Amino acid sequence: MKKSIVIFGASGDLTYRKLIPALYMNFRKRRLPADTQIIGFSRRPLSDDAFRDKMKEGLLAFVPAEFAQDEWESFARLLSYHPGDVEKLNDYLALAGKINSTDGEDADGLFYLAIAPKFYPIVVRKLDEARLLTPMGKVGYRRIVVEKPFGSDLQTAESLNDELLKVVSEDQIYRIDHYLGKETVQNILVLRFGNAIFEPLWNRNYIDHVQITVAETVGVEHRAEFYDQTGLLRDMFQNHVLQLLALVAMEPPVAIEANALRDEKVKVLRSIREIPEEMSSRFTVRGQYHGYRDEPGVNPHSETETFAAVQLFLDNWRWQGVPFYLRSGKMLKEKLTEIVIRFRRPPLQMFDVLSGVTELSTNHLSITIQPDEGIHLRFMTKVPDGGMMMRPAELDFHYSETFHETPIPESYERLLLDALNGDASLFARKDEIGLAWKFIDGIRRGWIGEAAPALQPYEQGSWGPPGADRLLWKDSRWWEQEDTLHRSEGDSGERTVP
Amino acid sequence: MKKSIVIFGASGDLTYRKLIPALYMNFRKRRLPADTQIIGFSRRPLSDDAFRDKMKEGLLAFVPAEFAQDEWESFARLLSYHPGDVEKLNDYLALAGKINSTDGEDADGLFYLAIAPKFYPIVVRKLDEARLLTPMGKVGYRRIVVEKPFGSDLQTAESLNDELLKVVSEDQIYRIDHYLGKETVQNILVLRFGNAIFEPLWNRNYIDHVQITVAETVGVEHRAEFYDQTGLLRDMFQNHVLQLLALVAMEPPVAIEANALRDEKVKVLRSIREIPEEMSSRFTVRGQYHGYRDEPGVNPHSETETFAAVQLFLDNWRWQGVPFYLRSGKMLKEKLTEIVIRFRRPPLQMFDVLSGVTELSTNHLSITIQPDEGIHLRFMTKVPDGGMMMRPAELDFHYSETFHETPIPESYERLLLDALNGDASLFARKDEIGLAWKFIDGIRRGWIGEAAPALQPYEQGSWGPPGADRLLWKDSRWWEQEDTLHRSEGDSGERTVP
Repeated sequence: MKKSIVIFGASGDLTYRKLIPALYMNFRKRRLPADTQIIGFSRRPLSDDAFRDKMKEGLLAFVPAEFAQDEWESFARLLSYHPGDVEKLNDYLALAGKINSTDGEDADGLFYLAIAPKFYPIVVRKLDEARLLTPMGKVGYRRIVVEKPFGSDLQTAESLNDELLKVVSEDQIYRIDHYLGKETVQNILVLRFGNAIFEPLWNRNYIDHVQITVAETVGVEHRAEFYDQTGLLRDMFQNHVLQLLALVAMEPPVAIEANALRDEKVKVLRSIREIPEEMSSRFTVRGQYHGYRDEPGVNPHSETETFAAVQLFLDNWRWQGVPFYLRSGKMLKEKLTEIVIRFRRPPLQMFDVLSGVTELSTNHLSITIQPDEGIHLRFMTKVPDGGMMMRPAELDFHYSETFHETPIPESYERLLLDALNGDASLFARKDEIGLAWKFIDGIRRGWIGEAAPALQPYEQGSWGPPGADRLLWKDSRWWEQEDTLHRSEGDSGERTVP
Repeated sequence: MKKSIVIFGASGDLTYRKLIPALYMNFRKRRLPADTQIIGFSRRPLSDDAFRDKMKEGLLAFVPAEFAQDEWESFARLLSYHPGDVEKLNDYLALAGKINSTDGEDADGLFYLAIAPKFYPIVVRKLDEARLLTPMGKVGYRRIVVEKPFGSDLQTAESLNDELLKVVSEDQIYRIDHYLGKETVQNILVLRFGNAIFEPLWNRNYIDHVQITVAETVGVEHRAEFYDQTGLLRDMFQNHVLQLLALVAMEPPVAIEANALRDEKVKVLRSIREIPEEMSSRFTVRGQYHGYRDEPGVNPHSETETFAAVQLFLDNWRWQGVPFYLRSGKMLKEKLTEIVIRFRRPPLQMFDVLSGVTELSTNHLSITIQPDEGIHLRFMTKVPDGGMMMRPAELDFHYSETFHETPIPESYERLLLDALNGDASLFARKDEIGLAWKFIDGIRRGWIGEAAPALQPYEQGSWGPPGADRLLWKDSRWWEQEDTLHRSEGDSGERTVP
């Protein structure tokens, strides 16, 4: 059966850096279905060969170790270019001739919208008009993959959904959150539900609180204009941070299957306790790094946040009373995505703790999503030769050590393959997106209300504004930073909590 | 206050290899109390200097890295030698002159019986006759340290206790089990009760079974004659193996304090379900290594076991229905003392397991007592680039990595210091010893009964006789050997269970 992958926005960055390398990797691993063709669609006039040359350049730049000339030559034969205007029906009709088979045979089509969100409804409508969204044969599929951001608030997300759902059904839409394509994000599920030892501890009886950090060291880079209108909360929190929250907090699904998984994630998002506007400065923090207003493309009086921290509660049976502290920001000290489950103290302090480490005498499990993918379980152990004194130590697992022969693939490699295979487990469903926006919209209302937290400046290379620390200190807790968490030997781990 | 440590059996191996090096290490760490003197008591005529020379030779042989000439010279001044016959009162009276102070001042005395058990009652009686067991002053102490074996069955242990208790009280007796002096054995307590995350899992709801292995690679060595009359069960099981069992299975004590700890250990020993004679071959295995009967000193028709494996149950609230598999032997494949807690399977198998590793898809926690002291938690993790397949990996902690600046001290160093400080936590109490013998005596009765298991020969360098494997296979379980447990990367961990 003929299979076509059409990429709208084929001359853009995402295609060049991520999508074509991901498709090439799948090809190289013999995972692309037979008879697959990949068509780049974009306004720029380009020959097939010019397009291939450009894509080859991308492979050499982004997956150089995997480039092999003979593989490339076979792969290049799957590639073609279709110059076209997303607003012109004729250009779609011409595309149809390439996608549909002439003899009425079944033919699959995957349409990847690597374009600005405002064009999504146009493209989908035109695809429909060109009869490209209805498979010709009996068993073919037609699917749409859309990139984030999906809307900029609940209302725009809903109207975008409405537009799409006029011409396709929910199960034809694959909303990308590339975080879900990360191995270590998927491993949260395996860790929780493939093991018998964590789930009994995974609740309010044993967990003191949960921290989620998504920290970047870069600034706004080339996205200044877009970013200044969007801000961190909508750029990172609505999708990545809340997805991590959902995976950490969800109940066991009935199966590892798209709707079962998404049903459980939706339940988590539904259970988030709304932050009332008047509590905004108590439970949320917004920051902006020094120098942000000087970035080209940024409004010199910008009030846009480049850092946000939020404390929230889940009103459900499992998590009642357990705070979740979430933070994300740009220009921070380290590139780090990490989830820390901090357990309660033992009910009785039987052993003396080595002087200076009292603050740390609890257990925690940290799941490092990136960059040093791994799992660390901090526990107390006896100090040798020291009576019955104890101190913290770590049980460690590093992906790179255990799986050094299997490098961790890029998110898009997995996500494109799943979309081709019709597995929507790692894509966001309409109701997920809606609930996430609902929560984010609430925070943003608080930020323009009377009790709004001040926008706090922070140093580049720091861990964000002081308010982010105070968010935990007010509860006698503190962020487990990478640098204190995986501290070197000999460091007593001493912490000062003001 | 004057403090005397008197070692009976001063010309023996234990003194030379363990006791004097341990005392020297405590001296070097400035832990020996001021005014301590160490008196060697033995029949052999030796001058103080000859005794010191011999002890120096021991230090150079057994703690060479710690030997320092200036330290030695100071330490040697504490050493003296008292030639004497354990049966002659006069020799004790002469000793009294060295121990008791002349001016009626308080004076402490610790009597270490590094001699054959048959002499214990004699020495204690003579010490008493020489009035050496009653401190002269108001606050001094007089303590007896006895080496294992403490009796050879319940009856002999009780009569030995009776003999000792005629002249001293229970709290004056320190019964050595040098296993309890091991850092990693003590760490079982810290691991269990210094952390909040293990105890909730530590019961019949989450644990499938527990394995305890005490394996040696050596044979009977110079102890052939003694060993042939004793056998492994009495030499290793009654003390070391059952002590490990007690520490792993005990309830949290009210405090880390000698009697509180021993109360809990006694409760475990009391709860061991007796193995009825007619079930002997179902729950016990006895083996003898090939070539044992050819060892000099061994009866050529010897039926003495050099290997034993036992399956037992604890009839208490926490452990009902959870099998404990214990094994110990000589001439085995590896020197290894390890406790493995094998957890139950997850209630639902949601993820596919990498082909070949199905047998291993459960969690376990292994506590390696020796030689590579550490903790390993096996969990399932996602195989990168492999759909939602999972495979086992390990969270690892090695003492030597975390505490490379603090070498693990020898057992005797800690035990001698505890005895000097009057802390009996790591010594066995009368009732512990009695209950341990009671269980061992029951097994031994089964071994001479009608349903006795055959004595199975096993290859040197193996993991014991086939019956030891069958003990677990009959329950669809298997021993977690060091070589499969901490398997190298790339090894799929595949196991075949016949």
